[in-house]
Amino acid sequence: MDVIAELAGLIGADAVLTAPSDLEAVTEDWRGRYRGPALCLARPATAEQVAAVVRCCARHGVPVLPQGGNTSLCGGAVPSESGPAPVILSLTRMRAVRAIDPVNNTMEVEAGCVLATVQDAAAAAGRLYPVSLGAEGSCQIGGTIATNAGGTSVLRYGNTRENVLGLEVVLADGTIWSGLYGLRKNNTGYDLKHLFIGSEGTLGIITAATLKLHPLPTRHAVAWVGMASPEDALTLLTRVQGRSAARLSAFEMINRLQLDLVVDHVPGRRSPIESEAEWHVLIELSDNGSGDALDAELQAILEDAFADGLLSDAALAASEAQRHAMWEVRHSVSEANKKAGVGLTTDCAVPLSAVPAFIRGATAAVHALVPDLPVIVVAHLGDGNVHFIPFFTFDAWAAAGKGGAGNGNGEGGGRDALAAALRHAVNDEAARLKGTFSAEHGVGRVQLAEMERYKPAAELALMRAVKQALDPQGIFNPGRLLPPG
Amino acid sequence: MDVIAELAGLIGADAVLTAPSDLEAVTEDWRGRYRGPALCLARPATAEQVAAVVRCCARHGVPVLPQGGNTSLCGGAVPSESGPAPVILSLTRMRAVRAIDPVNNTMEVEAGCVLATVQDAAAAAGRLYPVSLGAEGSCQIGGTIATNAGGTSVLRYGNTRENVLGLEVVLADGTIWSGLYGLRKNNTGYDLKHLFIGSEGTLGIITAATLKLHPLPTRHAVAWVGMASPEDALTLLTRVQGRSAARLSAFEMINRLQLDLVVDHVPGRRSPIESEAEWHVLIELSDNGSGDALDAELQAILEDAFADGLLSDAALAASEAQRHAMWEVRHSVSEANKKAGVGLTTDCAVPLSAVPAFIRGATAAVHALVPDLPVIVVAHLGDGNVHFIPFFTFDAWAAAGKGGAGNGNGEGGGRDALAAALRHAVNDEAARLKGTFSAEHGVGRVQLAEMERYKPAAELALMRAVKQALDPQGIFNPGRLLPPG
Repeated sequence: MDVIAELAGLIGADAVLTAPSDLEAVTEDWRGRYRGPALCLARPATAEQVAAVVRCCARHGVPVLPQGGNTSLCGGAVPSESGPAPVILSLTRMRAVRAIDPVNNTMEVEAGCVLATVQDAAAAAGRLYPVSLGAEGSCQIGGTIATNAGGTSVLRYGNTRENVLGLEVVLADGTIWSGLYGLRKNNTGYDLKHLFIGSEGTLGIITAATLKLHPLPTRHAVAWVGMASPEDALTLLTRVQGRSAARLSAFEMINRLQLDLVVDHVPGRRSPIESEAEWHVLIELSDNGSGDALDAELQAILEDAFADGLLSDAALAASEAQRHAMWEVRHSVSEANKKAGVGLTTDCAVPLSAVPAFIRGATAAVHALVPDLPVIVVAHLGDGNVHFIPFFTFDAWAAAGKGGAGNGNGEGGGRDALAAALRHAVNDEAARLKGTFSAEHGVGRVQLAEMERYKPAAELALMRAVKQALDPQGIFNPGRLLPPG
Repeated sequence: MDVIAELAGLIGADAVLTAPSDLEAVTEDWRGRYRGPALCLARPATAEQVAAVVRCCARHGVPVLPQGGNTSLCGGAVPSESGPAPVILSLTRMRAVRAIDPVNNTMEVEAGCVLATVQDAAAAAGRLYPVSLGAEGSCQIGGTIATNAGGTSVLRYGNTRENVLGLEVVLADGTIWSGLYGLRKNNTGYDLKHLFIGSEGTLGIITAATLKLHPLPTRHAVAWVGMASPEDALTLLTRVQGRSAARLSAFEMINRLQLDLVVDHVPGRRSPIESEAEWHVLIELSDNGSGDALDAELQAILEDAFADGLLSDAALAASEAQRHAMWEVRHSVSEANKKAGVGLTTDCAVPLSAVPAFIRGATAAVHALVPDLPVIVVAHLGDGNVHFIPFFTFDAWAAAGKGGAGNGNGEGGGRDALAAALRHAVNDEAARLKGTFSAEHGVGRVQLAEMERYKPAAELALMRAVKQALDPQGIFNPGRLLPPG
């Protein structure tokens, strides 16, 4: 019996899709950069069915590619052009919010649950699930766990990793590990959940999770600040942490070019301050309970900083509408950059103290390749995470390099060789400062060369030993995360 | 050449100790319950020397037993009575605080650094290393990482695991993995540090770490509250979290017997409140910055709770001396219990919402074995961690059971069979409520039977696969953490 027929027998014919119209959306990534053939799309409804699919695929030597909302920025969730076509495993039918325990501040959900649904269910119980990111309306909680998603709440609440207490995982031999613990403390052997979190589907299939919840913030203060340099921004961050660490929930920084692009290309966006500052910082304090607003606290910090010459201009949001407007500017960067030209996104993190040196060094390295090339900086400064983006207008990009158009990620084409060289120059600078080439986006297929280039041999060897131990046949998401040994 | 001579050649004769007087302190645990022979004590001064020791031991098939401050409560850091005698590896000579980065809020330390020294060095830089526990004056940071130490700051800052950003580890083949990252975000493959944290020396030798620091709290409020039940205490906890979550730094609960034992057996201790309440809660709020004291915030919460009949009596500390006195009562429980009789300590955690059911169920289970036996409850309630302690006066213990005295941990003797039965009864109740038998103390050798009894087979198999992958020869701390397969 062939695999597809066998799968249909195991989980039902209507749960095994092979029509091109059904496969189209799952065999190409959302930006249209990567595509490859799949044997079929399997949509199991339970962990037991997932296990049955995995066992069947293992018997036949067919790769299993788990796919959540297909929102990867790294080509991590779609098939390769070549090699054996995988079974794409979708957990869309496993999307229940199984339970919320407001006293324990936990929530048990199935992996196919959309992130926004998780957030909404928590909020309905008066709790916060803090992980928040652009794709939250379509990405699935299982995918965010498998990729340890970051976002704009990391400074206060940590990455996805810090918000997962337990997992249910289907292993390569079809065993179901039921590790749905809802405990704050549990020192009984290796903490296996951390192996699967961030493993990008290469070690097991996450089918459910116990998430950590937090009290819902009820008070906010947001300010927009113009500054002369990243050094000044860091000094201000240290001051805010010294006075309001427990309430600081965002410290985001963009450069002037980024602000200009948002104002010029996204209708309705205006600069929150009048000044022509080179660097712009958004600060948010938040707290729960029903005490005073936090405006006075933030204002006092900013007044002191102004008196010390640390900032050139600042605006404190005076209403929820103004707070919203400031955040809208920050959230519009992707849209603006897409409209304005071609930005070669990177995703570095360095120690916070090294951020100014990183921005200087990366700028110099980029200019050594393309003199005077504009650069966009969008930083989650509180996390040391800097999206440093060499930027071309459409005309400049058309004129740059020679050869085929490629896909913008160094795969074919003269412009792509240029893009790869620019990204390497930025990533080299991060590595020199003990940083990383992928802070929050992951590895997928796009960053395999970087894994080879920057990871210590001992670390790659350890990862391969773990992969070999948990998935000796190599059936889970082959060709992703780990470069060929 | 024999192992000892070879080690002396590798790291110096004065760094390889074999005299009985040198081995005495490291071959017996601090409570005098476990002891076993060692080949020698090796005291390397660098990671390279650690690697040389490991390679030498691997060649000779000699086990390597890493020992920090020898403060394990589970017999995890001393040799077994039988089996091949290990080389005990002490990192006492590797105790440098290598660097503090106050902007990045990180600190790089060598594994042999005593925890209190780490705390002091952080404080001198205006920062907090939050992990705090009874043994902090002698335990070493490497040991706290290898055991994922808990303590009294977990509610606010997490376990040791949440406060480690990077590790340097010597692997079983003598490779040094340099993973001393100081990054808040790093999604480049499996997060290997989490494998070693809490592995109790069975996967590698931690030689250095990059720790996460926090702003130093400057404002505090502490209250002692008398309550009728654990249910009421949980309700109060939920209220405090709803109003002051970001400032809540402790929510500890003890029962009346525990308070009485402290007052009766530890000179200078008095009950902070007058009432005869059955349950007692210590609440601490803390914050940094220079705003108002937090007393008013805590007082408002307590007044509302009193108005609602949730508490019978409460005292808000009016001075630092009073705050200190309240904490002294809490910190005196071990001393009191040791003086008062024989307490069979357990270390369970359950979901917070299940704590009342756990205390009821465990009490009933204990009374089914020994009618009316007094029980002590000492709970880190905010973490769901309950030390539920069946308690015998010295006379009652002398009269209990028959046969040899054993060692108090179910190893030999009629009383020890009783102790084991009582602990199993308590741990069974935790398991029934989806809890754990070891929240913060770890496994060591004492809890091996519990690992076999409570851990799902799939989880043990995964742990063994990881152990086999990282330490195929089984030279690191054999006979600890993992029950024989």
